[in-house]
Amino acid sequence: MVPSDLANSLAEIGRRMDSRAWVPGSAGNLSARIDAESIAITRSGVHKGRLSTADIIEVSYEGEPAIASQKPSAETLLHCQLYRLFPQIGAVLHGHSVAATVLSMQGAITFSNYEILKAFGFATHELDVVLPVYENDQDIARLAKWIEPLLVRDPPIGYVIAGHGVYAWGTSVEHAFWRLEALEFLLSCELERRRLK
Amino acid sequence: MVPSDLANSLAEIGRRMDSRAWVPGSAGNLSARIDAESIAITRSGVHKGRLSTADIIEVSYEGEPAIASQKPSAETLLHCQLYRLFPQIGAVLHGHSVAATVLSMQGAITFSNYEILKAFGFATHELDVVLPVYENDQDIARLAKWIEPLLVRDPPIGYVIAGHGVYAWGTSVEHAFWRLEALEFLLSCELERRRLK
Amino acid sequence: MVPSDLANSLAEIGRRMDSRAWVPGSAGNLSARIDAESIAITRSGVHKGRLSTADIIEVSYEGEPAIASQKPSAETLLHCQLYRLFPQIGAVLHGHSVAATVLSMQGAITFSNYEILKAFGFATHELDVVLPVYENDQDIARLAKWIEPLLVRDPPIGYVIAGHGVYAWGTSVEHAFWRLEALEFLLSCELERRRLK
Amino acid sequence: MVPSDLANSLAEIGRRMDSRAWVPGSAGNLSARIDAESIAITRSGVHKGRLSTADIIEVSYEGEPAIASQKPSAETLLHCQLYRLFPQIGAVLHGHSVAATVLSMQGAITFSNYEILKAFGFATHELDVVLPVYENDQDIARLAKWIEPLLVRDPPIGYVIAGHGVYAWGTSVEHAFWRLEALEFLLSCELERRRLK
Repeated sequence: MVPSDLANSLAEIGRRMDSRAWVPGSAGNLSARIDAESIAITRSGVHKGRLSTADIIEVSYEGEPAIASQKPSAETLLHCQLYRLFPQIGAVLHGHSVAATVLSMQGAITFSNYEILKAFGFATHELDVVLPVYENDQDIARLAKWIEPLLVRDPPIGYVIAGHGVYAWGTSVEHAFWRLEALEFLLSCELERRRLK
Repeated sequence: MVPSDLANSLAEIGRRMDSRAWVPGSAGNLSARIDAESIAITRSGVHKGRLSTADIIEVSYEGEPAIASQKPSAETLLHCQLYRLFPQIGAVLHGHSVAATVLSMQGAITFSNYEILKAFGFATHELDVVLPVYENDQDIARLAKWIEPLLVRDPPIGYVIAGHGVYAWGTSVEHAFWRLEALEFLLSCELERRRLK
Repeated sequence: MVPSDLANSLAEIGRRMDSRAWVPGSAGNLSARIDAESIAITRSGVHKGRLSTADIIEVSYEGEPAIASQKPSAETLLHCQLYRLFPQIGAVLHGHSVAATVLSMQGAITFSNYEILKAFGFATHELDVVLPVYENDQDIARLAKWIEPLLVRDPPIGYVIAGHGVYAWGTSVEHAFWRLEALEFLLSCELERRRLK
Repeated sequence: MVPSDLANSLAEIGRRMDSRAWVPGSAGNLSARIDAESIAITRSGVHKGRLSTADIIEVSYEGEPAIASQKPSAETLLHCQLYRLFPQIGAVLHGHSVAATVLSMQGAITFSNYEILKAFGFATHELDVVLPVYENDQDIARLAKWIEPLLVRDPPIGYVIAGHGVYAWGTSVEHAFWRLEALEFLLSCELERRRLK
C-alpha cells in the first residue's frame, strides 16, 4: 500500500519538475522508500507533471509490482538498486534536462569550486567533484549490474546516463528534490561555462 | 459540433504551450479529430494561450468551416492532411519555438542516440532519426500537395517548416502534447549541442 | 479619468510581461489611448508586474499628468509621440529583454524569412525586415524629436533603444502584447542564430 | 520578535526568487532590518522558495539568534555587516543564478552603457559600473572582515562571491528585489554578450 502522503509528495515534486521542463512527455520517474520491503514508484506511460495518486504504485525491492496489472517505470531497477545499496536514501528522482542530456553526450563531467557543492555534504567549495556518466543501455537489469560495483566503490553525489538524464537522491522526497535542483544548477553552470571558454 | 470536452482539452494544451512560450502572438494552431467527417481546430487570429471554447471550431476534412463566418487557422489544410493520411492520429499541434525556428533555417535536423527518441515508438536510443524540414510556402494547399508523397513514403516523427515551426501529432490531445514536448526537448538539445562543438 | 477596464488590461499585460522577465525592477512602461485628449500610462517607480489600477494614470498628449502630483513614466513622451503620429495605435508596450538589450548593442537588426513576420501585416515570410535601433539618450524629449522624422518616413514594426529595450504597439492592449511577443520571439531567434554561425 | 508582515514579505520574495530558479535546494538567504538591534533572516537548511513565517528568525547585529536553538543562515554575518555599514539598507537578498556563478568564475564584471544601471541611482546609462567579485571563503567571519574596507571605500551596487552568487540590497524588501532583478538582468546580458563576441 502506498501511503497517501507519500504519493501526494511525489505528485507535488512531479509538478515542480514539470515547471522546470524536466519531465517532457512521459519521461522521468520518481520514487520513495515505503519500508524494508516496498518502494513507491511512478507508473510507466504517465506524464510526471500531472500525476494523480493512482499513478504511484507499490513495487518490491526486485521491482515487481504489488498489483500485477500495474506497470512500473521502465527504470524501476535503477531505483531499487539505490535503496538496496544505500540505507539513508529515502527518495530517488530521475528527470531529463537539456543540460544533463547534452553534457553527458560530451564525456566526463566535473564540477570545480562551486559553492553549491556544499549541498552534497562537502565542507568546502574548493573541490573537483565528478558526476559519473554511465553509458545508456536499454537492458536496465544489465545496466544496473554493471554500475553496481562503481556505486559501491565510490558513492557519487548522483549520476547521469548518457543522452538520457540525471538520477538524484536524498533522505526524503523534499531533500531529493533539493539535491536534484542543485545538480541541475551545476549542470547548467557547466554548460554555460563551456560555451564561454 | 465540437464536443465541449475536446474543446476544453485543446484550450488547456494551448495554455501549456503558452507557458513554454510556444505560441507567441496569434501564432500556432491546435486540432483534434472529431469523427470521420469533422475536425476541431483553433480559429484564426486568436492567442492560443488564451482560448475559450468558442475559439475551437469545426471544419471538414477539406478544411471548410461548418459555420461559414468562422475563419479557421491559415494552416488548416496541413492538419486535415495528417488526419486523412494517418488514421491513428487523434490530434495535431503546431507551435513556434526558438529552437525549431533557428535550427530549421540551418538545414537538416537529425537526432542521434537520445533516450527520449523512445517516446516515438522506437525500441532503442541507438539511432539516427531525421526530423524533416520542409521549405515554407504561403500557399498552404501547394505546400500540403508537395509534402504528401514524402509523408506517405517515410512517415516521420513530426516535421518542421523552415523558419516557421514544429508539427507534432499523437493518438489523443494529451499524447500529441507529450510528443510535442519530446520534439521540443530534442530540438533544444540539438541547439545546445551545436553551440558546444 | 482612466477607465477601469483599460487599467485592468494594462495591469494584466504587466503580469504577463513579468512572467517572461521583461520588466525587471521598475523598468518598462505600458500605455493605452483613452481618447483624443488623454492617454493612460504606468506611473514612474512601480514594478510593472505588480500594478494596481492606482498605478495607471492619465496624461495629456504632451505628457502632462492630469493630477499634478502623479509622476508618469520617464519615457512618457515616446508613448505620446506614437499616439500622435499613428491614429491606429491603441496601446504601446515597452519592456527590457536580454535579447533586445544585447542585440541592440551590437548594431543593426534585420529579420529575414521568419514566418512570424506575418504577424506585422506582411503577406509573406520572404522578406528582410529591419527593426530600427536608436541610440539611447537620457533627454527623452530630444530623443523623441530626433526619431520623429525616421518614424514618419519609414513606419517600423517596432523599435529598440540601444542597451535599453523594445517598443511595440498595436490597435489594442491585447494586440500590442501579441506584437511584443512576436518581436521578442524574433529577437530570441536572432540571438541564437548569431551564436551558431 | 519578527513582525509578521516582514516575515510574510520575505517569504513572498523567496517564492519570486524560486520562480526564477535563483534559490536551488537550500541555497540563498534573505533578510530585513527590524530595528537598531535586530535583523530578521531565513533559517539555515530550508528551501527559500517554500518559506513559512517560522523559517524567518531574529538575530542580533552580531549574528546571534534571539532563540538559541534556531540556526540562522550560514552567511548571516554578511547580511549583518551591510546593515551596520549602510543605515539606508532595509533588506538584503542573496541568490544563486547561473549567470552570476559562471561570470564570477571568469574574473571581473563591468556593465557598460546599460539603461537599467539607472535602477541603481545613476543619472545616466553612459557609464562603466563595476560589480565587485570577491573570492569565496568558507570562513564567513574572515570573508566579512576582508571585504569591509572595500565596501566602505567604494560602496558598490551589489557584489558577487565567486562561484557562489549575488548579494543585492535596497531600502525595503520590495526595493531590494527590484535591485536583485536588475542585477540578474545585467548579468544575463553580460553572459549573452560575451558569447557573441
